[in-house]
Amino acid sequence: MSDPTGPDATAAGIAAAVAAGEVTAQAVTEAALARVAARNGLLNAFTDVLAARALATAGRVDARRAAGERPGPLAGVPFAVKNLFDIEGLPTRAGSLINRERAPAARDAALVRRLEAAGAVLLGGLNMGEYAYDFTGENAHDGPSRNPHDPSRMTGGSSGGSGGAVAAGMVPLALGSDTNGSIRVPAAFCGLFGLKPTYGRLSRAGSFPFVSSFDHLGPLGRSVDDLALAYDALQGEDPDDPAQAPRGAEPLRGLVEAGAEGLRIAVAGGHFARNGDPECFAAVARAVGALGAAATVEIPEAPRARAAAFVITAAEGAALHLDRLRERPADFDPATRDRLIAGTAIPAVWVMRAQRFRRWYRERVLALFEEVDVILAPATPCRAPALGQATIVMDGATLPLRPNIGVFTQPISFIGLPVCAVPVWVDEGLPLGVQVIAPPWREDLALRVARALERAGAAGCRAAP
Amino acid sequence: MSDPTGPDATAAGIAAAVAAGEVTAQAVTEAALARVAARNGLLNAFTDVLAARALATAGRVDARRAAGERPGPLAGVPFAVKNLFDIEGLPTRAGSLINRERAPAARDAALVRRLEAAGAVLLGGLNMGEYAYDFTGENAHDGPSRNPHDPSRMTGGSSGGSGGAVAAGMVPLALGSDTNGSIRVPAAFCGLFGLKPTYGRLSRAGSFPFVSSFDHLGPLGRSVDDLALAYDALQGEDPDDPAQAPRGAEPLRGLVEAGAEGLRIAVAGGHFARNGDPECFAAVARAVGALGAAATVEIPEAPRARAAAFVITAAEGAALHLDRLRERPADFDPATRDRLIAGTAIPAVWVMRAQRFRRWYRERVLALFEEVDVILAPATPCRAPALGQATIVMDGATLPLRPNIGVFTQPISFIGLPVCAVPVWVDEGLPLGVQVIAPPWREDLALRVARALERAGAAGCRAAP
Repeated sequence: MSDPTGPDATAAGIAAAVAAGEVTAQAVTEAALARVAARNGLLNAFTDVLAARALATAGRVDARRAAGERPGPLAGVPFAVKNLFDIEGLPTRAGSLINRERAPAARDAALVRRLEAAGAVLLGGLNMGEYAYDFTGENAHDGPSRNPHDPSRMTGGSSGGSGGAVAAGMVPLALGSDTNGSIRVPAAFCGLFGLKPTYGRLSRAGSFPFVSSFDHLGPLGRSVDDLALAYDALQGEDPDDPAQAPRGAEPLRGLVEAGAEGLRIAVAGGHFARNGDPECFAAVARAVGALGAAATVEIPEAPRARAAAFVITAAEGAALHLDRLRERPADFDPATRDRLIAGTAIPAVWVMRAQRFRRWYRERVLALFEEVDVILAPATPCRAPALGQATIVMDGATLPLRPNIGVFTQPISFIGLPVCAVPVWVDEGLPLGVQVIAPPWREDLALRVARALERAGAAGCRAAP
Repeated sequence: MSDPTGPDATAAGIAAAVAAGEVTAQAVTEAALARVAARNGLLNAFTDVLAARALATAGRVDARRAAGERPGPLAGVPFAVKNLFDIEGLPTRAGSLINRERAPAARDAALVRRLEAAGAVLLGGLNMGEYAYDFTGENAHDGPSRNPHDPSRMTGGSSGGSGGAVAAGMVPLALGSDTNGSIRVPAAFCGLFGLKPTYGRLSRAGSFPFVSSFDHLGPLGRSVDDLALAYDALQGEDPDDPAQAPRGAEPLRGLVEAGAEGLRIAVAGGHFARNGDPECFAAVARAVGALGAAATVEIPEAPRARAAAFVITAAEGAALHLDRLRERPADFDPATRDRLIAGTAIPAVWVMRAQRFRRWYRERVLALFEEVDVILAPATPCRAPALGQATIVMDGATLPLRPNIGVFTQPISFIGLPVCAVPVWVDEGLPLGVQVIAPPWREDLALRVARALERAGAAGCRAAP
């Protein structure tokens, strides 16, 4: 077992060592803070480091254990959250300049409270694309998140700091949000496991919204077991989130070791087998090879689904930010502002048509799961681009980079399906991501397949240099 | 008791006479068909008269009774439906020219089946404003519905034929639909009782939609007891209407005779005490006088509520009809078409803002019902205008007539509250309507107050000349 104070310690390993008295939460936290201090100047993952709070939290964990109480399933596990989660005493900036003038949050977001109730230790807030309208991890106000595997490259976004902090070994766990791909893209570019749960599964109380009907919160980590551990701690009904589905917690950590045995696994064809660099499809092929034969399914009308997600995103984002756009346009990141302003001109009939299509499309995709248990697809059309890169070549056409990073993630989150993004390495270059897509409420299936890939050596994290 | 084959027979009276064997359903039906034949040429209430079907239905009712079966609570009661209800064998025209090319409906609408299951006899389909986007009862394709109390005047709309057929004594009951006022306005102009139930109460399966999130179906009749009788037969869950609330039937006919005893009754002030002719407020005062002292409540931001309802209506209507607007603009009623075309240009952000306001406003209005049981307000800002009239004077300003007829009804249906419109006569002129507005699912309260007004002689129908 690895050193619980080291950069490659898992959450499960740390919690076990703290519970066993082999290390204190304080020592784990100090070591994590030291790594943040050493590496954050380059990587720019954290926007807020809360050392005093973290040490106080760790002290309470250690005191509980010393008093003979159970310190919790995440005892002493350092974590951090995308800065759209409320953290008591800080304004919730959501990657923006404007939100920094908000009143400090009066309490932590629901998911922060859940992780700390399980013994975890919040270290701080993480960099993100402005208002989560981003796939790059760049930020005009805070500077870009940098990829630990190559700091000249993007982390992906919008949960860029979440990807960077975990991939760099600063913390074993981070929380992000995913509207059109904002957990799965940084998981792919940074070589991590990331879970976007079913829409309505985890409480969003105390987080800054973007597109309410497809905003999701979820964890990023370096092993499937850590994702399962965190996810089980995050579950549970919360009356403060009216969009949350009324379902009790359905713990899955005990189920994940079953792996892919007996599952019907398919690969998404058509749209998901085009529009990307060859190595993205090589990563999917590697996963297929490790799992045995897989059928191909066609997700119908995926390009229209992506277009519909774009239209709804731009229009809802514009509605959310309308007053700020009117009053303070110069205080936005231009890359965010100009898309939001364009969103103000989208006719309502387009959005209504998009919503109507979305209902049809969701039914069609759900029907596919009568024949298969999970569907594999690439997470991104490319590896992590260089910071500042503006274009991408897709099937021979040079296109704007920013919107097209989400070509494979947007058609999935838009209908709320749970997805585990798994890191696959096809050579000595940067990592790639594969989406393991499951039907609603079946996060267990996605994590079982992710675990099978991890166990077979087809997916997994590598230490950043 | 009046002659069950006469024009002023009530539904309850007919059903009792048929059940007692005093008259046959066939005789009642034949008499009703004769009245339609005699009066429809002038009044233009029916677009489709189904004599053979009606006589066959009546024959089955009589056969059931002859066989000793209970013939149903609406045995032998003739009724008709706005032509947006599906009628087996007819295309559902919804007041339009274009829809006449649709395939004939394969079965009757759910509410038609319910009334016939209770022993009622469908006589046919009724004239309406095109696609229900109308407050006048005029129709460019079928000609205007004419008001039985003065055929040079409007019935109100869009359920114009429903108002005309019942006020003329052709049938004691009709069904209409109400999105922004389309049951309450013709009830007011034609001097009838009309019930717009709570949103989600009655099945809309088999009816042509307009603005799904505030489309309602409901009955018009000449007495409160008839409304209660029809409403109880119309209730019940229907798996074919996904927007229907999962509530069992809550029969209220037995409750209505309790009248207003012990109820806290308020009058809507502000917006609802301006913007209309003096006689509209005199009608409300008459109702207040009959009920005893009433408090005044302010429905907050009613003008904004009306604006929000306009924006959502125009945009959703445009989305619904977009393909028809593109392909066949010349086949629309120009008065409908031009508003729908304008609706295509409404930005999505306006609609989203309107929906956000709507949630706020609904909460605020619901809070008023902590202090009061029902709220009274005028139904319209004027009596029935002349056919073709284009303007209205409101508080000294000359304004377009069509949109402003709904000034008092739009802010209520928009949030789904149940309303009974009651007919009040303040002089020898045309009737006026008063809305009795109740909290969600409390149709019983609205009908109890309507019954109290009827019993006190402050509300009631008068025979058309």
